[in-house]
This record gives sequence, structure tokens and C-alpha cells, in this order.
Amino acid sequence: MTSMRVAMIGYGFMGAAHSQGWRVAPRFFDLPAAPEMGLLVGRNGGRVAAAAEKWGWAETSTDWRQAIARDDIDVIDIVTPGDSHAEIAVAALEAGKHVLCEKPLANSVAEAEVMAAAAARAAEHGVFAMVGFTYRRVPAVTYARQLVASGAIGDVRNVRAEYLQDWLVDETAPLAWRLQKEHAGSGALGDIGAHAIDLAQFITGQRLTSVAGTIDTVVAERPLLAEGSGLSGTAGTGRGAVTVDDVALFSGRFEQGALGAFVASRMSTGRKNALRIEVSGSRGAIAFDLEDMNALSYYDDTAPADRRGFTKILVTEPEHPYVAAWWPAGHMLGYEHGFAHQAKDFVEAIAAGTQPTPSFADGLQVQRVLGSVERSSEAAGVWTAID
Amino acid sequence: MTSMRVAMIGYGFMGAAHSQGWRVAPRFFDLPAAPEMGLLVGRNGGRVAAAAEKWGWAETSTDWRQAIARDDIDVIDIVTPGDSHAEIAVAALEAGKHVLCEKPLANSVAEAEVMAAAAARAAEHGVFAMVGFTYRRVPAVTYARQLVASGAIGDVRNVRAEYLQDWLVDETAPLAWRLQKEHAGSGALGDIGAHAIDLAQFITGQRLTSVAGTIDTVVAERPLLAEGSGLSGTAGTGRGAVTVDDVALFSGRFEQGALGAFVASRMSTGRKNALRIEVSGSRGAIAFDLEDMNALSYYDDTAPADRRGFTKILVTEPEHPYVAAWWPAGHMLGYEHGFAHQAKDFVEAIAAGTQPTPSFADGLQVQRVLGSVERSSEAAGVWTAID
Amino acid sequence: MTSMRVAMIGYGFMGAAHSQGWRVAPRFFDLPAAPEMGLLVGRNGGRVAAAAEKWGWAETSTDWRQAIARDDIDVIDIVTPGDSHAEIAVAALEAGKHVLCEKPLANSVAEAEVMAAAAARAAEHGVFAMVGFTYRRVPAVTYARQLVASGAIGDVRNVRAEYLQDWLVDETAPLAWRLQKEHAGSGALGDIGAHAIDLAQFITGQRLTSVAGTIDTVVAERPLLAEGSGLSGTAGTGRGAVTVDDVALFSGRFEQGALGAFVASRMSTGRKNALRIEVSGSRGAIAFDLEDMNALSYYDDTAPADRRGFTKILVTEPEHPYVAAWWPAGHMLGYEHGFAHQAKDFVEAIAAGTQPTPSFADGLQVQRVLGSVERSSEAAGVWTAID
Amino acid sequence: MTSMRVAMIGYGFMGAAHSQGWRVAPRFFDLPAAPEMGLLVGRNGGRVAAAAEKWGWAETSTDWRQAIARDDIDVIDIVTPGDSHAEIAVAALEAGKHVLCEKPLANSVAEAEVMAAAAARAAEHGVFAMVGFTYRRVPAVTYARQLVASGAIGDVRNVRAEYLQDWLVDETAPLAWRLQKEHAGSGALGDIGAHAIDLAQFITGQRLTSVAGTIDTVVAERPLLAEGSGLSGTAGTGRGAVTVDDVALFSGRFEQGALGAFVASRMSTGRKNALRIEVSGSRGAIAFDLEDMNALSYYDDTAPADRRGFTKILVTEPEHPYVAAWWPAGHMLGYEHGFAHQAKDFVEAIAAGTQPTPSFADGLQVQRVLGSVERSSEAAGVWTAID
Repeated sequence: MTSMRVAMIGYGFMGAAHSQGWRVAPRFFDLPAAPEMGLLVGRNGGRVAAAAEKWGWAETSTDWRQAIARDDIDVIDIVTPGDSHAEIAVAALEAGKHVLCEKPLANSVAEAEVMAAAAARAAEHGVFAMVGFTYRRVPAVTYARQLVASGAIGDVRNVRAEYLQDWLVDETAPLAWRLQKEHAGSGALGDIGAHAIDLAQFITGQRLTSVAGTIDTVVAERPLLAEGSGLSGTAGTGRGAVTVDDVALFSGRFEQGALGAFVASRMSTGRKNALRIEVSGSRGAIAFDLEDMNALSYYDDTAPADRRGFTKILVTEPEHPYVAAWWPAGHMLGYEHGFAHQAKDFVEAIAAGTQPTPSFADGLQVQRVLGSVERSSEAAGVWTAID
Repeated sequence: MTSMRVAMIGYGFMGAAHSQGWRVAPRFFDLPAAPEMGLLVGRNGGRVAAAAEKWGWAETSTDWRQAIARDDIDVIDIVTPGDSHAEIAVAALEAGKHVLCEKPLANSVAEAEVMAAAAARAAEHGVFAMVGFTYRRVPAVTYARQLVASGAIGDVRNVRAEYLQDWLVDETAPLAWRLQKEHAGSGALGDIGAHAIDLAQFITGQRLTSVAGTIDTVVAERPLLAEGSGLSGTAGTGRGAVTVDDVALFSGRFEQGALGAFVASRMSTGRKNALRIEVSGSRGAIAFDLEDMNALSYYDDTAPADRRGFTKILVTEPEHPYVAAWWPAGHMLGYEHGFAHQAKDFVEAIAAGTQPTPSFADGLQVQRVLGSVERSSEAAGVWTAID
Repeated sequence: MTSMRVAMIGYGFMGAAHSQGWRVAPRFFDLPAAPEMGLLVGRNGGRVAAAAEKWGWAETSTDWRQAIARDDIDVIDIVTPGDSHAEIAVAALEAGKHVLCEKPLANSVAEAEVMAAAAARAAEHGVFAMVGFTYRRVPAVTYARQLVASGAIGDVRNVRAEYLQDWLVDETAPLAWRLQKEHAGSGALGDIGAHAIDLAQFITGQRLTSVAGTIDTVVAERPLLAEGSGLSGTAGTGRGAVTVDDVALFSGRFEQGALGAFVASRMSTGRKNALRIEVSGSRGAIAFDLEDMNALSYYDDTAPADRRGFTKILVTEPEHPYVAAWWPAGHMLGYEHGFAHQAKDFVEAIAAGTQPTPSFADGLQVQRVLGSVERSSEAAGVWTAID
Repeated sequence: MTSMRVAMIGYGFMGAAHSQGWRVAPRFFDLPAAPEMGLLVGRNGGRVAAAAEKWGWAETSTDWRQAIARDDIDVIDIVTPGDSHAEIAVAALEAGKHVLCEKPLANSVAEAEVMAAAAARAAEHGVFAMVGFTYRRVPAVTYARQLVASGAIGDVRNVRAEYLQDWLVDETAPLAWRLQKEHAGSGALGDIGAHAIDLAQFITGQRLTSVAGTIDTVVAERPLLAEGSGLSGTAGTGRGAVTVDDVALFSGRFEQGALGAFVASRMSTGRKNALRIEVSGSRGAIAFDLEDMNALSYYDDTAPADRRGFTKILVTEPEHPYVAAWWPAGHMLGYEHGFAHQAKDFVEAIAAGTQPTPSFADGLQVQRVLGSVERSSEAAGVWTAID
């Protein structure tokens, strides 16, 4: 078994999750190559050193270009805010490094196009890029896709998908980078709506072809960040305008004709991380809620009429995706297991010389959906093609 | 105590529910007047006689005009399909009869306007009309409105409302009257979406001012009804076009600015009668599901941070609306109790000489929302004012 | 169709429920005889007259012996406290009246034996007696029995049954008749534990053969009832000893060998009326909770390993017991529907000249289980046969 | 920061969980000493080497006595079957090693007494022992204890605790070591009932003083293990007697007087890992289910009467125990997080020179409860003191 040396750029909350993925994956899965936590990169030398020691990265750097230039690095893992994704990813791919990039792929369709083009060129030389929609790798979600693909629910008739949080209900929450268009690109739509879109397309196996929607900013002004408290810091003095949405409502048309209803909201009081999807089909349905992430509800419309109902399947059996590597039936997995699964799938694809999924092209397509929702919203909500 | 003599026009499924309401209300509530099940009216003499005997109506008639002309009738209760509502209601009001009319008020805004105008004229003479949005009278719903009105959730920030059924998933379900525009006026939108709209406005205490949406017919052709099997009969030979929607998705803007996401669907496999609403506010939230109709979920965002969560309140305590008249705490009420509550509230208002709610004007306003959704759908989903 | 004239003895909370059963059953079910609410009997003339008017009984009497003596009465319906059941029921049966008696059948095994013997003698002459375990007639419960009988869960391996309430958690709740051994015979054990026992035996189709258990009185002293406030009145001055249990825990052995764990508690804070039962079998399981009474959970252990889970069946389909008479799928039934079903089943059996179930012999057997639990408790919890 | 070098004896399923605990704890918590995965010990050299490489242990050994004799080992972590716990733990403590021992502490009260005595002696010299009831360290459980201790539910009135699994429903499951008394000591009672006992005592803060119960073996004979397939292997030829229980039902009396109802069952078809506890108090209640382990239900009986209900608290807020070290609110933790919390708490206590909890004395007390249940069962279920 050879090793696969990773340099991770960025060290926020996502950095902890990715670190855990690299650390844990080889301890539960038999991997064709051993990921090594080689280099952690961030602009603030002191902070990056502390993070590296805490998380167990061997070395640190304050210059991502230098990291990319190193011969002993195989993989660049990008967990910075979206405005730097394109520059880093393109440079890394051109330097022959495999790339794992957190979602959303970029802050705009234009950037995402550049990234996808770079990934396509790199792939010709056996260098691959992947975007990190980890929720695909929650076992219940992967299993939902398998069920739908197997015909268990028949033809898709209707989809409802929503991602509900409430951390912006509080009007005193400060103007963090995620609320600033120049850093985050988008608000609830891009950050959490992107997950709902990816999941809906992933589970149905169908892409959206057009959307109609509205984005809104319910709390339009917030306290500025205190100086020196960082991009996700605490409230200081003064107030500033929130430049991204906090609620996005849209409908989408899937390629085989079904309609989907989408909600991405950070104004859903009491909902902490409720990514929910229900796919209704001609022979059954599936329903999932990330706040109950070890379960999948399945309705079999072909069962005897008196026995029909939603079956709450605990997706913790060895027969279910990823699960056999972990614990006995009935033992729960949590949020970060998706990152271990992502590391496993990435390593396996790279070692096999194949394209890991979701690719940058997949990420670009989600970006295009997001862009079309924004254009629809600007045009009073009219149906808008995704091209 | 005086009596209040009722003639009911129509005897379908809604007729059974209304009959139960009139029968049961005086047995549990102390009413200022005793409703009497006087006269049942339907076009088919044999069938109406059988229904009257089964349900306990004293007399029958095959001519609603005759019923209205009788001096000994105080109330006309209309449970026919929507295409006859306007004619019967207007005639009844002009004849000085109080009117209870099943929802939706009419098949079109134009008809509803005529009805509301007739109701306004009649009210000047102490003759009142009411439209039957009975779900307002599920104790958990009435209580939700009280909670919101009391400030328990603060300002409304976001609403999600959906009414999901699955009886049209089956492609072999025949072309009943509810699928024909000339009889039903509208499909999922008008029949069940109307409930979602009324509930959202009732609970928030706010009206919608504009909407943007799409209606769709997923299964566009169905078996014709067998001859002689009635308007809700069985499948015969031949196929015909479904002329109403079976899925409606729309967004709405409430008068104080919040957005609402609405879904009305008869393509939601496995969902039998899932009328759900969640209202998110600046200080809390409420959530309701008609498939769990004795409960209301309430989130108090002002509770200590470690104790917050959705509280599942069993709305079966004597402190809750309507409940003291029924059973001890923890004993469940069902679907038809709303009709007993409706009968009670109607009788009390009429006896007091006051306008029962929801009025025909309220019904008209819901009709206008429905009409605006249809116009938006025809205009590629653009935001459309409700006027 | 002939009529069946009922005299009801007693007019407490159970009287309202039985009245509703007699009133409503013929309006939804096609019955072979029409129950008539003929005579309401109670000791307090004023109160019984008020109750009769409210509930719609034609006449009243203050003497149950007179009622039994009348020729025009076919059925005696007993809803008094348990200490009077035996005397009334035996007299009624000897007078040739069919009898419906609220559970528990009696306050002691000895009384119940007398009643069962009287019922056996009467049955030889076509006069029948039934005990009112109405929860058997919740559609989800009847359906559970059908599922188990059909082999859907295989052999019974384990049972857990509990009936949890909380109305005695409050130490200031007064010493109502249900807390006095001379009136109620037993406390949580006899009043609600009896339901758990009946349901467990009904659903499994097996009787208990021995039990081991403990009964306890957590709050042993309470305020005396205010004078003149009735047997279920308000707190007055002084305190008295609670002479019945408020918690009962016991194990039972079913005739085919499985163990059952039983809890009857009025100290289960927050549980209002949680009658729950789970039957685990060699091929599946069923679970029911009266606080979610329109659903039955079913686990099919023969399903593919990846699709197993508890299916929440909404027992509101026309294929389910009793349901076709009521509303469309997904429309909920409530507490009192069981009383309509009881009236229907009783009338049908009597009209057919057959023994309605559960019989007094069935009620006696439950009484014997209760008696054995009490004897076990007195004997430090040892296993005690039910004979 | 100094290091703390661990040798782990045993490498079954529990070994994977403990390894993950040692590996992950220092990456999320700031620990006073760094645990090092030094030495993995097992009898089969090949297998232990494979496990060590997979899990990341630096060295291996096939002789636990040698491991204990090494100077560079600080902690002995015992994850072998129960029959070897006493010998290893006592030797380790006498050699001056801190000990973490999986539950149940031993296979008998006698062994547990020896262990507790050894631990008491060692503690005088600053050498400490702890038993691994990790479910105490699920945040929702720790939080439940805090709530109860804070008076949030008042005085404890009743407890119900059950641990339900179904892996023995299948009659073809082979006679693994957990089904053999000589290896496992006890069956469902000792393996999972022990968790229910520990949780009930931990959350209430009260010990059981007496018990009355019954243990049973529903499936009494099973296929023998195939030769060479190990102690948890596959079915071979021949059949043998199951010598431990698969169902245990018992009642317990807590020191302040409340009764508890306990069930430990491996015959609960469809229940995979349902460790549930509900504590009812004079002012409120808490309820927990390990199959929904990120939530705690809390009922506040002092809330206004119309707002009472079980609040489902997602125990994922930074205010909750252990949570701040992990992810943002609403992100779920899983089974193995309890092992990271255990490692953290153990390291902190050892570094501080204080006794970690639960101690061996605590483990002995649970063992005595188990022993008393067995004695009660042998004595026809009589109440039996725990001494």
C-alpha cells in the first residue's frame, strides 16, 4: 500500500471535519492507499500551527502556492471560503495535484466554469478533481439513491426538498463572512440550498432543467464584526447591510418532467440542521431528514393495501452502504462519518485512476441551478432555464 | 332554547360530516338554539331518501328551490360540488336563510364575488353566511392561532404550508367530478390548497398580498367514469383528459412581509391527508400536521438555550379550545369533531345575531388567492398581486 | 328493522361515551336493529334529568330496579362505579335483559364469578352479557389482532404492555372515588392495568397463566373531597388515606410460554393516556400507542434485510376494520368511535342471537389476573398462578 | 503536555470502539496528557498484528502479563470477554497501572468484589480504575442527569428502563461466547440490562436497594459454532444449550422509594439497540432512546397547563455536555463519540490524580444488582435485597 499525501488549505470548521475524514477513513476501511495528513496551510502562521498540532497535521505553511509547488504533496484539499476556490483549485490541478474542494464549488457560475474546464483538462492526464457534497455519503442518502435506481418507487412524480436552519433568526447575530456576498457568493441559497439541490438530483438520478424562485433577506441589517475577531467573529460596533439571502424558495422541473419544491431557509426557528427530502414515485416514496440521519423512510405502494405505510428503516445494517465497516446494527453514525466516507471514496477513485464523484462538472451544474434561481428571482420569479 | 331548522343540500361524503356535526354538537355543547336536522335535499329521490334515513334527517326533497321557499327552514347548508354553490347560496340568502357553504366558496372568483356581495346585503338584515373551512376548528389549529396572536412566536418570519395526498398517484383512478374543471373548478389547488391558504392566513392573522406559482397535471388522462356510477363513481370504458391540476406549488407574500412556501399535491405517495403548516417567528415557532391532529408542536426561542426544542403539546386539555366539552385529557378527537365545532360556532353566532367566521368575504379572499396562483402559473410563474 | 331499547344506569364520563356510541352507531353502520336511547337511570333525579336532556335519552328514572322491571327495555347498559356492577348485572340478566357492563367487570374476583355465572345461565336462554373493553375496537387494535392471528409476526416471543397516565402526580388531587378501595376495588391496576391485560390477551390470542408483580401507592394521602361535590368532586378540608395503588408493575406468562412485562401507572408525568403494547414475534412485531391511535406499527422480519423497519400503517383505509363506514383514507377517528363500534358489535350479536365478546367470562378472567397480581404483591412478588 | 501510554488487551468489536476513543479524543478536546496507542495485546499473534496495523497501535504482544510488566505503559485498557476481567485488572492495578475495564465489570459478584478491593488498594497509591459504562457519556444522557440533579423534574416518582435488541430472535444464530455462561457470565441481563441499571442509577442519582425479577431463555438451543470460527463465529454442525438468559424482566426499588420497571431483551423483534429510559418526577419527566441518541425529551409539569408537553431537545448545542468540542448546533454525534468522551474523562481524572467515574466500586454495585436479579429469579421472583 502506497501513501497519498494531503495538503489542506484552510482550517475553519470544515477543516476539522476534513481532518477527521482523513484520520479515520483508513482505520475502518481497507484503502488502496494511505492518506497522510501532510501539510496544513493558512495565512495566519500562529493559528495554522495551533490547528495543525490539534488536528495532527505534520507540517504547516502560510502560502498555498508553495504547498502546491511541493513534489511530496499528492492531494490539495480546499476548505477555504468560496471566493478563493477557483484560484487555488485551478493552480493545483495545473500543478498535477488531485483536488478535493468543499462545496459550493465557487461563488459564481463563471468561476465554476473555469474550474470545471481546468478539471476536464487535468483529467486527461489522470489528475482528478472532486467537489465535497458529503451528504451524499450519509448511508441513508446513498441507500435512498440505490432504492430509487432499483425502481423501488417507480417513476418520480414529485419532489420536496428543504434545508432549514435558524441561526439567523437572532437579529443580533453579526455580519459574518457567510452573510457577505463578496466572500460567500450567496446566502442560504448557495450554502444550504446547494445541498438540497445536489441531494434531489443525486437521489432521483435526474437533473433540474429549469427553475422558478425567489430569494429574500428577512433581516437586512446586522451588527458589524468586531475588529480582529475574524471572518466568523463576534459582534462589534456599527451595523452593515446583509448582502446575501437568508430565505430562498424555488420550484424546479426535473429532466423527466416531475416538479420539485425547494426551500432553503435560515429563518426556520427551531430547525437546526433539517435537510429533508421526499421523493414521491408511481410505486412508492422515500423520505429523509438529516436531523434523524440514521433512518430512511420508505413507502411501498405495491404492498397489500392494509399494510402500507412509511417504513422507518434504520440504515445501520451491514447490508447498507458504508455501514459494514463501522458498528453492529442499531449503532448510530454521526455527522463526520460522511467525511470519512468521502475520504475513502476519493482515495479509492484516485488510486484506481478514475474520476471521483461528484466531479467539478457536477459542481458546476449545481452552480448553474443556483445562478438560474437568482436570475429567476431578479425576473419576478419566472421560470428560467438551466443552461 | 329555541330551535334552528336546517335544510342540507347535497349528500355526498361532506353530507355525512355535516350531518354528524348537527347531530352531535348539541349533545356536548350548551347551545343557545337547538339545531334540527329538518330536510335533506338531492336530485335523486331514492338516494336522498336513503341518506336521510341513514343520517336522521326528518324530511327529504328533490328541489332545493322548494327547500329555500319553506318558512320552517332557518338554515341552508350547502354541500354540493362547487359549481352550484353560487346559485343556491345567493337564492337562499335572498330568501332570508342563513347559509353555511362548504369550501371552496365557488369555482371562480367571479362567482365568489357574487356570493360575497349577496352575503353582505343579507348581513344588513341580520341574515348571515359562513364558509366551511372546518380545519380552523381542529383544537390544535385554533390553539395555534391563539398562541401566535398572543405573541408566543413573535413576528412571523417564514411560513411553510402543504397539503399532501396520494389518491391520484394511481393512474387507473377514474375521472371523477373532482378532476373535471366544469364541476370542481380547480384540482389540488382549489380543493386542498385552499385549506393550506386558509390555515396559513388564519394562524398568522395575516393575509397574502401576492403569489407566484405553478400548477401542473402529472397524470393528464384517466379512465372515464362508468355510466350510472355517479360523479364519484368507478372506472368505465374510454379515457378522458383531466382538466384540473394535481400538483400546485406556490410562494406567497404575507401582508407584513414574510414569505410562505405552499405545496398542494395529490401525487405525494403515502401521504393520505397531510395538511401541515409551520410558522417560524422571531421568538418561536409552531408546527401542525393533520395526520397527528391532536398535537401541536411549539418551539419557544426564549427558553434557556439548553432546554429549547419543539414541545409536542397534546391539545386535549380542558384549557384548550373546544376540548372541555369532550373527554378527559389524553383522549383523542377525530376528523368529524371539527364539524361539531363548526355547528356550535355557527349556531352561537346566528343566535347572537353576529357574523360567523369565516365569512363569504373571507371565502372570496381565498378564492382570489387561488385565482392569482392560476394567473401566475399561466404567466410563467411571475409574482402576481391578489386584488 | 326492529328496535333495541336501552336503559343506561349511571351518567358519569362513561355515560357520555356510551350515549355517543348508541347515538352514532346506526348513523354510520347498517345495523340489524335500531338502538333506542330509552331510559337514563341515576340516584339524583335532578342530575339525571339534566344528563338525559343533554344526551338525548327519552326518559329518566332514579331506581334501577324499576328500570329492569320494565317490559319495554331490551338492554341494560351499566356505567356505574364497579361496586354496583354485580348487583345490577345479575338482576338485569335474571330479568331477561341483555347487559353491557363497563370494565372492570367487578371489584373482586368473587363478584365477577357471580356475574359470569349469571351470564352463563342467561345465555342458555338467549340473553347475553358483554363487558366493555372498548379499546379492542380501536381499528388499529382490531387490526393488530388480525395481523397476529394471520401469522404475520410468527410465534409470540415477548410482550410489553403499559398504560401510563399522570393525573395522580399532582399531590393536591383529591381523594375521588377512584382512589377508594370500597368504590373502585383497585387503582391503576384495576382501572387501567385491566385494559393492558385485555389488550395483550386479545392481540396475542393467548391468556396469561401466571403473574408476578408489585403494586404500590406513591402518594399515600390526599385531600378529602369537599362535601356535596360528588364522588369525583373537588378538594375540601382534611386529608385521608389513598386505599388503592397508583403504580402496578408485573410480569406475566402467556399460555404458549412467552413473558410479558406490564406497567400501569398514574405517576408517569406527562403521559396522558398512553396505553401502549408491543408484541414481538419470531417473524415480526406490532406496536401500538393509544396516544397515536390511528396508527399501527408493524415490523416484518421476513422483508429483505436492507428494507426492514417498523412500518407506520395509518389504520384509516377501507380495508381496515370498522373504517369503511367512516371517512376517506387519512381521516382520523377519535376516542369515542370505539363506543360506536361497541354498540354496533353488541347490537349485531344480540340480533343474531350469539354471544357478544368480550363476555363476562372474559371479564372474569381479567379479574382473576388482577387478583393474582394483588396476591403476588402481597407475597413479596412471587409468581402466582391464575386459576 | 506529557503522554499517557496505553496497552489495550483484547481486540474485538469493543477494541475498535476504544481505539477510536483514544485516537480521536485529543483531536477535539484539550487534554492534560496525550494518550498514546502503544501496545495491542491478544492471544493470536497474526490477528492482533492485523488489528494493530488497522487501528494504529504502535506495537503488539500476545502476553498480557508481559504488557503489564512493561515500564513504559501507563494504562491498561481491558476489552476482553468478562471471564478474564478480574485476573487482568487485579494484576494491572497491583503493577501500578491505571485500568479502564469494559463493562460488565466481571462475570460474578465474587470476581467484582476482588476487583473493587484491588482498585481501592491501588487508589491509595494514586493508581485508579474505571469501568466503561460509556452510555453515561452520550451528551443527552449526561444532560439528563444534570437536569434531574438540578431539580427540573422534582422528586423521582417512577422509572421505566429497557434495553431492547433483536439479534437472538433468529433461531439459527449460533452459540457465540455471549450465549455461554462460562464466558459471558450472564446474557441479556448482564450485557445490556447492566446498561439500563447503570443509566437509571446515574440519571436519578439514586441506587437500587432491592429487586424482584425473572430471567428466561426463550430460544434454549442453538447451532454450535463452527470450529476455528472464533468465539463470535459462524454456525457449524451440532446444537448446544444456551446457558444464559435472552430476556430479563425486573422491578427495582430506588433508595428514595420510587419503583422502576426494567426490561432487557434480545427477543424484541425490530428493535436494534433501543436503550430507553424514562424518569417521571413530581415536577417533570425526562425520556431518552439510544436509537435517537442526539435528543432528550423533557416534560416540564410547571409550565402553563396549555403549553405542557414533551420537548424534544436536540442535545447538540454548545451549552450541552461535551458538544462544544464537536460541530455546530444540529450536527449529530454517533455511537463512538461516547468512547472519545470516556477517553477524555479518564485522561483528565488520571492527570489530576483523582478517581475517574464510574469506579470499580460502582461496577461492583451494578454487579450486585445483577446478582440479586438472578437470585430473585431463582426464588420465584421474590423481592431480594441488594447488599
